[in-house]
Amino acid sequence: MTMNRRSLIGAAGLALSVPALPVAQAAEGAAPGAAKAPPPPPVTKILAEWIRGSSYESLPEEVRREGVRSFLNWVGVAIGGSHHETLDIAVSALQPFSGPPQAGLFGRSERFDIMNAAFLNGVSSHIFDFDDTHLKTIIHPAGPVASAILAYAEMKPVSGKDFLDALVVGIEVECRIGNMVYPNHYDAGWHITGTCGVFGAAAAAAKLMGLTQEQTVYALGLAASQPVGLRESFGSMNKSFNPGRAAANGLFAAILAAKGFTSSDRMIEVRRGWAQTISTKQDWSQITDGLGTRYESALNTYKPFACGIVMHPTIDAAIQIRDEEHVKPEDIRSIDLKVHPLVLELTGKTAPKTGLEGKFSIYHAAAVAFVEGAGGEKQFSDRAVNDPRVVALRQKVNPVVTPGIDAAQVDMTVTLNDGRTLHRHIVHAIGSVETPMTDAQLEAKFRDLADGVLPAAQAARVMALCRTLPDLKDAGDVARAGVLGA
Amino acid sequence: MTMNRRSLIGAAGLALSVPALPVAQAAEGAAPGAAKAPPPPPVTKILAEWIRGSSYESLPEEVRREGVRSFLNWVGVAIGGSHHETLDIAVSALQPFSGPPQAGLFGRSERFDIMNAAFLNGVSSHIFDFDDTHLKTIIHPAGPVASAILAYAEMKPVSGKDFLDALVVGIEVECRIGNMVYPNHYDAGWHITGTCGVFGAAAAAAKLMGLTQEQTVYALGLAASQPVGLRESFGSMNKSFNPGRAAANGLFAAILAAKGFTSSDRMIEVRRGWAQTISTKQDWSQITDGLGTRYESALNTYKPFACGIVMHPTIDAAIQIRDEEHVKPEDIRSIDLKVHPLVLELTGKTAPKTGLEGKFSIYHAAAVAFVEGAGGEKQFSDRAVNDPRVVALRQKVNPVVTPGIDAAQVDMTVTLNDGRTLHRHIVHAIGSVETPMTDAQLEAKFRDLADGVLPAAQAARVMALCRTLPDLKDAGDVARAGVLGA
Repeated sequence: MTMNRRSLIGAAGLALSVPALPVAQAAEGAAPGAAKAPPPPPVTKILAEWIRGSSYESLPEEVRREGVRSFLNWVGVAIGGSHHETLDIAVSALQPFSGPPQAGLFGRSERFDIMNAAFLNGVSSHIFDFDDTHLKTIIHPAGPVASAILAYAEMKPVSGKDFLDALVVGIEVECRIGNMVYPNHYDAGWHITGTCGVFGAAAAAAKLMGLTQEQTVYALGLAASQPVGLRESFGSMNKSFNPGRAAANGLFAAILAAKGFTSSDRMIEVRRGWAQTISTKQDWSQITDGLGTRYESALNTYKPFACGIVMHPTIDAAIQIRDEEHVKPEDIRSIDLKVHPLVLELTGKTAPKTGLEGKFSIYHAAAVAFVEGAGGEKQFSDRAVNDPRVVALRQKVNPVVTPGIDAAQVDMTVTLNDGRTLHRHIVHAIGSVETPMTDAQLEAKFRDLADGVLPAAQAARVMALCRTLPDLKDAGDVARAGVLGA
Repeated sequence: MTMNRRSLIGAAGLALSVPALPVAQAAEGAAPGAAKAPPPPPVTKILAEWIRGSSYESLPEEVRREGVRSFLNWVGVAIGGSHHETLDIAVSALQPFSGPPQAGLFGRSERFDIMNAAFLNGVSSHIFDFDDTHLKTIIHPAGPVASAILAYAEMKPVSGKDFLDALVVGIEVECRIGNMVYPNHYDAGWHITGTCGVFGAAAAAAKLMGLTQEQTVYALGLAASQPVGLRESFGSMNKSFNPGRAAANGLFAAILAAKGFTSSDRMIEVRRGWAQTISTKQDWSQITDGLGTRYESALNTYKPFACGIVMHPTIDAAIQIRDEEHVKPEDIRSIDLKVHPLVLELTGKTAPKTGLEGKFSIYHAAAVAFVEGAGGEKQFSDRAVNDPRVVALRQKVNPVVTPGIDAAQVDMTVTLNDGRTLHRHIVHAIGSVETPMTDAQLEAKFRDLADGVLPAAQAARVMALCRTLPDLKDAGDVARAGVLGA
């Protein structure tokens, strides 16, 4: 397999178990019997110092570029989720308790205090499980971080450059902390986006708020005290709750630390601190190695399709054949797929009835991609799953488990009614690290998510602001431009 | 030793390590190699059903009585902490973001939305580490629960009987969940008051809000997603942050669940749910055995002295000799103590300079108890530690480690200048389960905590309301009576 198991995570909350590796590292005060190891480096202080030292100018060009793409993708998914029942419920539950109308919600007209706004935009951006992914940890990095600092930026103006720097800083802290404890921490049952995301939100907020070294250390300590989320919640509204609450918790930590609220100054690394309490693995070098020169945030990826990653190669192949060979669904006699066993194990539903069931049907995925030329949230709706043309075509899909095809690949042969055959072999599907989505593809995804929520002209304006983030005098303009009626 | 190690926890945040017992119980989906065990009972649903079924009428008389005492003690410590720097900082940090002025803070004049008020009263009540203790788990039960529901009760009137029932329900859920995972969970590094307290707050709020069975289950699930606190924060403001945030998180969970926000319906028990993710021990019977007949909340205890429990017998003995034998400090030639080794190991400071250092000095504790006849927060102030009479007397204190004296005991012999000797042997110090504080002692503690914060007449009014909680038409009256200027 060229694709790591950890990347086989579905857009519909479909997650594969990763075996726990008992690689616990002993440290001072570790349990009796554990091997003696050198004490951990002071990573809490090291991170705080790096957070304070970062600047837009210090960021490599490709890191800036990926930061902008992460932001644009996040705004798109936050707009897309904004009228889901999950958000309707959360908005109505929290309205009676909200503070001053300091920040807006993408795609909606209500305004909240910044901590509630951070929560709600964070929830919205994860509802479709269509947000960004740091494949090494399966963290969805932007949600907790961007939700926290955009709410803050709406209240207190900050430049686009400073905002982008804070976003990168937050994603970096979150993903490095994730690398330190992955996979054991995730396998144990923690929703790693919520547990590590709170650090990202706190770090980014501390950066934007200009906290001192000591305050930044305490913000990280208060963040460590508030991990969010268990994997058992996957499949319920509680899943998107987690990045939202992580955003709010991180912001809460920074706001208290800014006024002098104290914590430990070594909260991440010591015996009864975060990493040794919440994980059986602690690889401190994941925090320190190449900090400031090698950026995890540059490895961020974006899902082109609103479903589990095992179906992505098939959708990619179908769209390529459809668009490049000008194939119409009614011309197709059969669609033969050579696939890895996991594809049928995870997405073997032959007759899905609902959009959600469609996310677990390789038959539907192939068919709808030929019919509609896309694999977005709309292609996994109840409507799409019950469209007669899609239903007819999915009965012509024949997946066959084939040795030599790994789970990130597909080999597709389409036979037309006139006898012609068309073929694609996908090794790295679009959206992988090797074949990233292009800017144009990201923008098409954004437009699709905004469709039905914001007028097309407004969506285009918001997208333009995202694209030009480093040039903005006031990053909060993105939030103001993205609300309903702006 | 007749005293369990787990009760040797200091008022000053002094906590002894309890060795981890590797008693992980396998369950469905447990790690490969683990012994096969029957699947856990559906404790999430079981707890929800019990929460819904409880009523004031169903509570045994001694449970009602201990509930009232827990509440009175909690109000006292919340008033006592209300002007500490920790709370000043938190209040000023959160004021700009607060929602409508729905609830007040004990001892202060600011008003906040109920979630921020729950947080702030919860912080205040733990600042002196002088709150109640469930000795089996070292949970401080009232803070997370009472903070959440009193804020709610101030916004939406509920009877004293319903409030007391909700308080008992919350403490019961919190302590039973704690019993399920203690000691492994605590030894790993979690601040158990914050991790289990969030369940207590959610359960009590769900009860008061009249949630359905399904909503209550989801409130517990959202609570499980928000554990708070690591032991590494002990000694910083972050320690009192934890019960406060647990209160707010539990309330947040119930408020969302009340509007239909969903979670898993088996969040506590399954493989990637709370107990198996956050602890290596899960004793499900601690949830289910005797639920509704045997009450953990009846085991709540209250600290008479604002210091580590190993010093309590000495202070108790000193006050008995002082008051019963009418001894004046200047009449004393020597104070000989037979003590357990831990007493000197933990509280061996001979010349403390600050109030905080005084909490770790058995010499100061004995001396100040003879001089002032008390062991409250004032006796562990900078003033008391530097009082010349106390300084002179502490030099006459001679603790000697003696076999046969356990850590909960002391044997004190006072020799007077006239040659007389006075003796006390303390087996169960005041405040233990065996020798609980009397109602009069609890009220004296309350008055002492309120002194300097509220006028004496107002403190007496608040105390009277607490005492008569089951008779109140509107439990929120306690909160309204306890603010500055009421």
